[in-house]
Amino acid sequence: MKKLLIIGIGAGDPDFITLQAAKALATVDVFFMLEKGAAKDAMVELRREACRRHAGDRAYRVVEAPSPPRERRPADYASCVDDLNRAKQETFERMIADNLADGQVGAILAWGDPSLYDSTIRNVEAIAARLGLAWEVIPGISAVQVLAARHRIPLNTVAQPVEITTGRRLSEGWPAGVDSVVVMLDGEDTWRRFADQDIDIWWGAYLGTPDEILLSGHLKDVSDEIHRVRVAARERHGWIMDTYLMRRR
Amino acid sequence: MKKLLIIGIGAGDPDFITLQAAKALATVDVFFMLEKGAAKDAMVELRREACRRHAGDRAYRVVEAPSPPRERRPADYASCVDDLNRAKQETFERMIADNLADGQVGAILAWGDPSLYDSTIRNVEAIAARLGLAWEVIPGISAVQVLAARHRIPLNTVAQPVEITTGRRLSEGWPAGVDSVVVMLDGEDTWRRFADQDIDIWWGAYLGTPDEILLSGHLKDVSDEIHRVRVAARERHGWIMDTYLMRRR
Repeated sequence: MKKLLIIGIGAGDPDFITLQAAKALATVDVFFMLEKGAAKDAMVELRREACRRHAGDRAYRVVEAPSPPRERRPADYASCVDDLNRAKQETFERMIADNLADGQVGAILAWGDPSLYDSTIRNVEAIAARLGLAWEVIPGISAVQVLAARHRIPLNTVAQPVEITTGRRLSEGWPAGVDSVVVMLDGEDTWRRFADQDIDIWWGAYLGTPDEILLSGHLKDVSDEIHRVRVAARERHGWIMDTYLMRRR
Repeated sequence: MKKLLIIGIGAGDPDFITLQAAKALATVDVFFMLEKGAAKDAMVELRREACRRHAGDRAYRVVEAPSPPRERRPADYASCVDDLNRAKQETFERMIADNLADGQVGAILAWGDPSLYDSTIRNVEAIAARLGLAWEVIPGISAVQVLAARHRIPLNTVAQPVEITTGRRLSEGWPAGVDSVVVMLDGEDTWRRFADQDIDIWWGAYLGTPDEILLSGHLKDVSDEIHRVRVAARERHGWIMDTYLMRRR
């Protein structure tokens, strides 16, 4: 039997790794990584550091492949994601079949938590049976939790719900029935569409890293500032990962 | 200056503690704990174990007080929570004023993650200025993430939102605009109201502990079974903590 671990390594700070994840990392024979090009180098380097730091003196291998390409602004987002995931599944299947022997433990490291806007669980589920894989998921600290912790805010108000959504969905309008909305994967500064409403925002970029930026306030007062800071930071670093909570007053 | 840390210790498994939390625990002079009576003894014991395990040889004190009482089925839930939190704030304020000296580090340990259905952040914010406290929040693995990891499922479907809500809110109807709903704080088995609909459920109790129970399936097939198992487990342990994800097909 072969075993594959999907390990959430937390968002940003190497110290977000849990003891469970650290112990799991120390059992891994082969790490499987998809390279995403220069823009994501920082994240790949953090994954490599996690391997080095927690594998101890144990021998392990890192097997890398280029991540399948993805359209930047596809007409049909969901079908584009489906195509991308099928390509990733084929890549992972080949990497694992060629490099993981019976009795060995492989791992895929997931940024943040594997359960939130991450396709690794779906991709492994799709190929596990064909590869004869036993597989497990290890949770990690998500960017959403780091956002809340760094701003020292709860995600929900007392007894009220919170919705976690994407920039793309938010561009269709404020979600029904909730006052608190966490937004991920927003490449379009979608908060700006709501700057005329009575809303507070807590925004964070490069959360948990030395480059972390935090901004918050009444949306109409800080909307333009966050936009300017985001544009400048993205220019400076060549990439940006940000998330935010908006709450109706 | 006095410093207070709100430390998320994760839900259930002591190994869910992050390296950041472990390092923080090792700096604490005084832990402040509210006792919640026999039903929550297991959780208090896990908090004590976290102190013992990570404080190392360092001397620390544990200051305990009884948690203020709470109505079980109040007519006005939000105002009952407000009253409870005011009482907790008074208790914490007295405990901290009497037991934390200038230059010392105090800590409140939060089950799971402090940002989700937990009043500690709000309560500390309310008293920090009066006590001259610098304070920080350290994220932890929430029960929601453990649920997803143990069932090996993503919380969201591709590019779609997920709402995190309470049993009380869910009893008012399925949340608008979302297919994936995570339910916390449900003492009434509210999933049963939706058992005639085309929905899948992933349920978990005592997540991350040796008593963990996981059940999942098409809701109409497993609704009664989860109810029976929940009633029996609550009877056996004297308490239950459970959470679940429901997803429309």
